[in-house]
Amino acid sequence: MKIDNILVTGRLYAEMAPLLQQKRPDKNFRFVAEEAVCRDDFFWADVYVGFRPVPSFEFGDIRWVHSLGAGVDAFLWNREWKEDVVLTRTIGSFGEQISEYCLSYMLRDLQCHDVYGWYQSQRQWKTVAPTLLRTQRVVIYGTGEIGQQIARHLRLFGVAPIGVSLSGQKKPYFSEVCSTEQAEEVLPKADWIIAALPLTKQTYHLFDERFFSLLNNACFINVGRGATVDETALWSALETRQVRLAVLDVVEEEPLPPTSPLWLHPNVIITPHIAALTSAEEAVDCFLQTLRRMENNQPLFNRVDIEKGY
Amino acid sequence: MKIDNILVTGRLYAEMAPLLQQKRPDKNFRFVAEEAVCRDDFFWADVYVGFRPVPSFEFGDIRWVHSLGAGVDAFLWNREWKEDVVLTRTIGSFGEQISEYCLSYMLRDLQCHDVYGWYQSQRQWKTVAPTLLRTQRVVIYGTGEIGQQIARHLRLFGVAPIGVSLSGQKKPYFSEVCSTEQAEEVLPKADWIIAALPLTKQTYHLFDERFFSLLNNACFINVGRGATVDETALWSALETRQVRLAVLDVVEEEPLPPTSPLWLHPNVIITPHIAALTSAEEAVDCFLQTLRRMENNQPLFNRVDIEKGY
Repeated sequence: MKIDNILVTGRLYAEMAPLLQQKRPDKNFRFVAEEAVCRDDFFWADVYVGFRPVPSFEFGDIRWVHSLGAGVDAFLWNREWKEDVVLTRTIGSFGEQISEYCLSYMLRDLQCHDVYGWYQSQRQWKTVAPTLLRTQRVVIYGTGEIGQQIARHLRLFGVAPIGVSLSGQKKPYFSEVCSTEQAEEVLPKADWIIAALPLTKQTYHLFDERFFSLLNNACFINVGRGATVDETALWSALETRQVRLAVLDVVEEEPLPPTSPLWLHPNVIITPHIAALTSAEEAVDCFLQTLRRMENNQPLFNRVDIEKGY
Repeated sequence: MKIDNILVTGRLYAEMAPLLQQKRPDKNFRFVAEEAVCRDDFFWADVYVGFRPVPSFEFGDIRWVHSLGAGVDAFLWNREWKEDVVLTRTIGSFGEQISEYCLSYMLRDLQCHDVYGWYQSQRQWKTVAPTLLRTQRVVIYGTGEIGQQIARHLRLFGVAPIGVSLSGQKKPYFSEVCSTEQAEEVLPKADWIIAALPLTKQTYHLFDERFFSLLNNACFINVGRGATVDETALWSALETRQVRLAVLDVVEEEPLPPTSPLWLHPNVIITPHIAALTSAEEAVDCFLQTLRRMENNQPLFNRVDIEKGY
């Protein structure tokens, strides 16, 4: 594919500008804040680079869209895609970042940081025994790159992570992978559920009342997409202690509205969608790699299957 | 060595009793609380099993002392040892436990848990970027079993841990090992110092004013022994920000007295010597293994070098 004009928008546009211009002086770039993108840009650009379509987005003459995030639901969810337009996504250190995020909250819980924080404030020298990771049963929803990286790290601590995917197809680092139906057998014994799913028609509200009813005092971490969770069902599960702790990096409505009761629930930890952040350097590296392959008509490692949605 | 009479005391004596009696019905045991040990016991027993000498301890006819903890300073520090008495120590999952303890506090800091906790309490959806472990320069004092296990885990996250020991001898899992003198060159760049040293004449107040003066805004974790740290020097280093965070599982006086200012320092985390706990099962396993080797005059994997003190 011949690419001349490149439109770059979204949070990182200004940081990416000098890096891209220096490395590809042969291209025409427009670096524009999301609110400043105008109709003409869509007819000028061959490729649109950003985290999401701007509100006024139209395909115009665009032939390629490159997502700066790993998730592409902003482009596909409840939207029509134009046939023939290629969609690619950024692949970076997301798995590593998300894995350290998950481990940090698992270890904080298993090492009783909050109990010890309380004892310290009371000047109490009092033992409560920490728990080793390898005693924990961990179920990971999503067996793609990110799920695999989480599983890889957990294995190193002696955990035998179980994966769950639509297909139930075997994947590296998991001790076993089951389909969403088969998962019902392992859920009652799970200590941790880690949700690392993209948002698609199949995963919308996958974590529903039925799912939560199968848990027993489990911890639920969501590092995928907020809309995979029915938040009303999660709330009830917290009340009945099916879920004893929820760590939510993503929620259905982002930013989480100040009126949401989730903010103040004592067993809910909220972080603002930061478990995996794209840095300007990684964004530029991945885009330039993809661009080179696109120009040389080489196979793309990060092309999104529009049907599947990831 | 022929062993008939076994005296078991300390925190775990009651839990260990049924396990030991069942597995070695051929031995005579006395299971006694520390405060109930009496003079006759020391002349009856061939072996003394406990975490520390009881206040009235004397060698009597004891020929072997087995420490239920990994550290043996309670038996050796500021005490005379009787020549010919063998001292062994418990080897268990201490390295694994301590490593997860350290990682839990490192990840909590790098993932900004405390900042996000504050934002959540304010219902603020606001980004502060977490930092990956692999960007961190970590220096580990102590390159024995425990230091090696910490290094092994950190390597898996892409860290290149530097070890420090008296000898500076190369050890597995460390990218390099230097002597305490050579360490002065790496300290100014260290993000984390992990102290995992036994208490000996050489390590007493090793972390002194001079040591802390070489740090720049580093985090200091002590999972070794409290008396390796000059606490006055640590306090000054916290004031001048040479140390930005201290995580202390051990302190010079344990339990830490309620009057200690350490309890309330905002940049100090105190836990009550729990980074490695001996479980009754591990204690029994290790003691029985050692007993078998002792009876068969086989080499001991866990004999303490009285001169070295570990």
